[in-house]
Amino acid sequence: MSTIFSKIINREIPGHIVAEDDTYIAFLDINPLVHGHCLVIPKREVDYIFDLEDAQLEGLMIFAKKVAKAVEKAIPCKRVGVAVIGLEVPHTHVHLVPLNTMDDINFTRPKLNPSNEELSKVAEKIRQGIK
Amino acid sequence: MSTIFSKIINREIPGHIVAEDDTYIAFLDINPLVHGHCLVIPKREVDYIFDLEDAQLEGLMIFAKKVAKAVEKAIPCKRVGVAVIGLEVPHTHVHLVPLNTMDDINFTRPKLNPSNEELSKVAEKIRQGIK
Repeated sequence: MSTIFSKIINREIPGHIVAEDDTYIAFLDINPLVHGHCLVIPKREVDYIFDLEDAQLEGLMIFAKKVAKAVEKAIPCKRVGVAVIGLEVPHTHVHLVPLNTMDDINFTRPKLNPSNEELSKVAEKIRQGIK
Repeated sequence: MSTIFSKIINREIPGHIVAEDDTYIAFLDINPLVHGHCLVIPKREVDYIFDLEDAQLEGLMIFAKKVAKAVEKAIPCKRVGVAVIGLEVPHTHVHLVPLNTMDDINFTRPKLNPSNEELSKVAEKIRQGIK
């Protein structure tokens, strides 16, 4: 069964993609903790990050670093935090969260619900930092 | 100025070390979110994870994977979650947190305060999984 993330990769459902190569893709979380919250994933469906082969895990983090540097430019923040939880969608995803306080990366707090237009604007700002 | 983590590396203060090589070290968080919560760090003091050189970032995650596999064996959990926040100690540290629920990786909740003896027992169990 295809995960929701594979559907974004395959353009079966829309996603606010900020970066992509043959192996990895990054897009906005549509229910972000804070604006600019991205998900970075390997295109191949592997449920658990520590089941990735070493080379895939390495590549994922280098790709995440590139995205994080663009997020820092696009979104006012002290730094970009990282979280990998994975109790919901069974497809490894690295959360990149622009941080100003510890609570910005608290996944138990209510999520934001930005409009499609707001998400598009944020995605465009991040994409510009990657170019 | 030496961070508290560098003091653990240099054995200036005690730490419940679970794994170590020339470049990386892992030890228990003494105020864990849940039992088995480890910190994995590069020995070289770099404040922000995304300022690590690519090779250091790759190595850090491969080291973290090895520790996470040992944590999974030692501590009953669904999987090991990852968080890198870094708003407090200015020395890159990857939190590895055995997860059963989303709240297990909520850094705003009160931390545990295990005794030195409890920490020693948990560290020994994790070390056995690494051997």
